Amino acid sequence: MLYLIGIGLNSKQISLEAIEAIKSSDSVFLEGYTSEYSQGTINEIEELVGKKVILLGRKGVEEKFDSVLLSAKSNNIALLIIGNALTATTHIQLLIDSKENDVKYKVIPGISITNTIAETGLDEYKFGRTVTICYHQENFEPETFFDQILENQKIGLHTLCLLDIKKDENPKRLMNCKEAIEILEKISNKRNQKNNFEYLGLFAMSSLKQKIIFGKEKIISFKEIYDLFPQSLIILGKTNAKEKEFLEKMY
Amino acid sequence: MLYLIGIGLNSKQISLEAIEAIKSSDSVFLEGYTSEYSQGTINEIEELVGKKVILLGRKGVEEKFDSVLLSAKSNNIALLIIGNALTATTHIQLLIDSKENDVKYKVIPGISITNTIAETGLDEYKFGRTVTICYHQENFEPETFFDQILENQKIGLHTLCLLDIKKDENPKRLMNCKEAIEILEKISNKRNQKNNFEYLGLFAMSSLKQKIIFGKEKIISFKEIYDLFPQSLIILGKTNAKEKEFLEKMY
Repeated sequence: MLYLIGIGLNSKQISLEAIEAIKSSDSVFLEGYTSEYSQGTINEIEELVGKKVILLGRKGVEEKFDSVLLSAKSNNIALLIIGNALTATTHIQLLIDSKENDVKYKVIPGISITNTIAETGLDEYKFGRTVTICYHQENFEPETFFDQILENQKIGLHTLCLLDIKKDENPKRLMNCKEAIEILEKISNKRNQKNNFEYLGLFAMSSLKQKIIFGKEKIISFKEIYDLFPQSLIILGKTNAKEKEFLEKMY
Repeated sequence: MLYLIGIGLNSKQISLEAIEAIKSSDSVFLEGYTSEYSQGTINEIEELVGKKVILLGRKGVEEKFDSVLLSAKSNNIALLIIGNALTATTHIQLLIDSKENDVKYKVIPGISITNTIAETGLDEYKFGRTVTICYHQENFEPETFFDQILENQKIGLHTLCLLDIKKDENPKRLMNCKEAIEILEKISNKRNQKNNFEYLGLFAMSSLKQKIIFGKEKIISFKEIYDLFPQSLIILGKTNAKEKEFLEKMY
């Protein structure tokens, strides 16, 4: 059996069913490149379940996982994923590969950033599609996410923007809210459109230091912007009466 | 301290941080009207934490929670919510009420149906806004959800449709996928538009009997449609190559 297990955003967010599955596994791997804990360490999980967790980089999951997957025919193999289990395309591919190789699988969901956004006071059901804001680099300056934000806004919806993460680089880079806002403004300027986005910044959600900040200037001048990770950005759509009340009273 | 605690879709999906918070609470309540477990019982949670859980109906949370909330000034009070913690407007209101009454609060997220949708093979980031399909009754035949589905489709996005639940009625009613499809077709007919929706049915997600069925006819003729709850419906937007591959190979 192959277990694809979401382990949440911090080391205490793991579920009982995840713990049970890991304990029943012969080998335990961690997909270590698409996200990271806002609090706690994988060592705590190792102690909790009494097993060694083997860290895999992008190649380890995307190119070198075949033999591990085949071994799941006769063993229990757990692949741990920070947040929810099936967020990346690679993880979906693992389900197809399992079926094609007659390997049984079980998906165990975990808490992701999408479970925390309602704490901002915005209505969870008024979010449009989620986008990822990518780093711009020479000869690679994507703008698709910008158009998707505008599409959400056109029909009054909020947008959760995930921020780029380059954990395979040395040193690793995690985009912060200020950088994300700068990229969005650069695209606006290039198009000669003044954007009037309203922002909510999410900092280290589900950690004890979790912070939600409303308003562009406050986000940019937040002094822990270089310390609290991961970060995400929400761009507001049209707010209803209850959302307005929350934003006025709580921030 | 008021703890608003998402406890997931089954009795094993509770997180360690949720268990800790409940154990530290003087009184524990369950919001018992917006959803229900796909597997397991609240008794198991009571045994796990060694505390009695007090069930609250809609009135208990929306109208009669004031004195409980005030008692959270000097006691730890836990309000458990099936799925994620802040999905209903009432729960957001509790945060505002807490702030206005100088009551500290902490939100502990839980697994919700949105964490399970990627197991269908559809890309989590290609979902537009989530809608709720309501029962039609005399003089109350809302169609807003239908327009929102069309809006999602216009920009190529999938729609997760939550299905109405009337737990306060006797006997309680939970909408099934067949009823939901019938309501959507009724609205199409009324508008003289033939809908060509493609459907994925989700049955008792996160239970051992969990079932995902692709295709309208298969969903309607699924013989456990009257037994497996809760149910949700996905209406497909435009599928990309990976999604097409998954749908072809896995269903």
